[in-house]
Amino acid sequence: MEASFKPEEARVPAALPLPTPPVTKATFSLFLLHFYIFDYNSYQVAKFGHFLLHFYFKIALCQLSVTTDKERNIAHAQQAIQDAADKGAQLILLPEIWNSPYSNDSFPVYAEDIDAGGDASPSTRMLSEVSRSRKITIIGGSIPERSGDKLYNSCCVFGTDGKLLAKHRKIHLFDIDIPGKMTFKESRTLTAGERPTIVDTEVGRIGIGICYDIRFQELAAIYAARGAHLLCYPGAFNMTTGPLHWELLQRARAADCQLYVATCSPARDGGSSYVAWGHSTLVGPFGEVFVTTEHEETTLMAEIDYSVIEQRSFFLLKIEKFPVALAGPTLVGALLCYWGEHGPTSLPFSHEHTMLYLF
Amino acid sequence: MEASFKPEEARVPAALPLPTPPVTKATFSLFLLHFYIFDYNSYQVAKFGHFLLHFYFKIALCQLSVTTDKERNIAHAQQAIQDAADKGAQLILLPEIWNSPYSNDSFPVYAEDIDAGGDASPSTRMLSEVSRSRKITIIGGSIPERSGDKLYNSCCVFGTDGKLLAKHRKIHLFDIDIPGKMTFKESRTLTAGERPTIVDTEVGRIGIGICYDIRFQELAAIYAARGAHLLCYPGAFNMTTGPLHWELLQRARAADCQLYVATCSPARDGGSSYVAWGHSTLVGPFGEVFVTTEHEETTLMAEIDYSVIEQRSFFLLKIEKFPVALAGPTLVGALLCYWGEHGPTSLPFSHEHTMLYLF
Repeated sequence: MEASFKPEEARVPAALPLPTPPVTKATFSLFLLHFYIFDYNSYQVAKFGHFLLHFYFKIALCQLSVTTDKERNIAHAQQAIQDAADKGAQLILLPEIWNSPYSNDSFPVYAEDIDAGGDASPSTRMLSEVSRSRKITIIGGSIPERSGDKLYNSCCVFGTDGKLLAKHRKIHLFDIDIPGKMTFKESRTLTAGERPTIVDTEVGRIGIGICYDIRFQELAAIYAARGAHLLCYPGAFNMTTGPLHWELLQRARAADCQLYVATCSPARDGGSSYVAWGHSTLVGPFGEVFVTTEHEETTLMAEIDYSVIEQRSFFLLKIEKFPVALAGPTLVGALLCYWGEHGPTSLPFSHEHTMLYLF
Repeated sequence: MEASFKPEEARVPAALPLPTPPVTKATFSLFLLHFYIFDYNSYQVAKFGHFLLHFYFKIALCQLSVTTDKERNIAHAQQAIQDAADKGAQLILLPEIWNSPYSNDSFPVYAEDIDAGGDASPSTRMLSEVSRSRKITIIGGSIPERSGDKLYNSCCVFGTDGKLLAKHRKIHLFDIDIPGKMTFKESRTLTAGERPTIVDTEVGRIGIGICYDIRFQELAAIYAARGAHLLCYPGAFNMTTGPLHWELLQRARAADCQLYVATCSPARDGGSSYVAWGHSTLVGPFGEVFVTTEHEETTLMAEIDYSVIEQRSFFLLKIEKFPVALAGPTLVGALLCYWGEHGPTSLPFSHEHTMLYLF
């Protein structure tokens, strides 16, 4: 059964190969060790060669306090980033809307023209300078972006050379309307982004979402299908949605997609019009919470080891090995398209051989 | 913006309309009440008319002990079903493999020819008789099924007239292989099913999965896109995967798809070769655990109210109202197909207007 299994033909469109980030602190485990433990086949041999690569790096989640003073917010974020870099962080994740209060009144006032750069965008200029000077990768939370006559909620990613690698505009705007209780409609001022953002960095392939984007499993599935190692969601869930779903959604995305998920919230300010839940978190590819916090200002440091993703793929071979699962996130659409044409009874599934390895 | 939003064109293939199950204990809330609370638009008016329908019924999850005595297992299940019906249950969910020990040695011995019926399948004959005599719907957990020279892990659904409404064959077989520790490969004896199973019953539209099927979010997404109210997963997670993922997966499926999820495990038998986790559970459309248990034999009773799904759709209008979300589970495939052809930068998202209503 295994011999007839051709993973390269099982996923349409073909998945991008996993990038091989530069190894900063690598250890090599002899393949023989794994051969001893697991029942390998030629697919694994071909995939991993004779070594399992361990790639470690430190991530910092900067759960920043945010004030009405933009210059203070920028200087404050810069200090937090530098402190984290001093402690060895190679990847920094900032909160959603960290340079401005989270309000429709503030967005137009605090918005910056990111594409113009320079004085038109002091927030991203700072991020660029710090990433270059410290040789770190920064997922710059989000800030209000002005582009022509539109405003976006945008996350900028800077590489170790200070260059802007990617810009994600929040796709799914967050509107809440409880008459007499709470009303917040991002769509009053903001325009929604139009595409997913996946970016190759020196610390792996990263998919970006902002806050409410995390509710859409299909976005995470797209990133997984494209070989992401890590999903980063700057996000300010509130005091209702936070306790209900913040951790659940992170763990679900991580476990379903078998990759790391990092989130970063602003610290809670009980006096602001929109009160953030906090609880920035790093979740591993088994849905395990590696590090989390309450709502106060803090910087969380944690180590990420992408070899865990590969190990977990051995142990719980859901995505990488099964023909059905290999179709993975593409399966839904393929099935529904087929189903739509041919009716539910004609739906073809293929299943060859499932292997679940566990500790 | 709202005026240009045509939900009927936003999902391809078109979603099936929600079925309207017979109302056994219905209350009607004046639309005006909801109008008072929420900011309705013509879409909601068209969808719900002037009434919000409350549809309540009781579900029973029979976490049965299973022995090597098949006749005892059948009589035991029958008694549990009758007891639950006596207490008002209109829908009964049984565990995965409830008439046989969970082992490859047992599957061929205990397997029944469901299609032949009668003496060839005493387990399903009992289910049919009880469902008819008590006028209840039964999601019959699963039993080993013999069909020609193949064996399947199959779940039979019986309507209130005793007729077999659907039969789901487990799609994703569960194989575990830890040399020297634990080995179990369903695929040694079983053949995988080839299609999803969604069934209209007198207690709503129900999507069926068996155990490992729950790991595949795309299967749940298919059911959600087809208008399911409830997903039922008979399942015997084990002592490793149970504490890791059993609850997480149920809550994730429910919250992501905004529907009810019910699971039913066999009771734990520490002396068996495969030790089940137990913890049968009912989860609501917000990912909230309504009722759960430990590992002992028990029957859980809970009330399901499908109007909660609609209410939650008002409060967290993720699936029903957003153009992006309306494409819903079909989005992944559509996007990936498009992305595959045109590259990641050409991916078209549409976003009109998001509205989140919360309590």
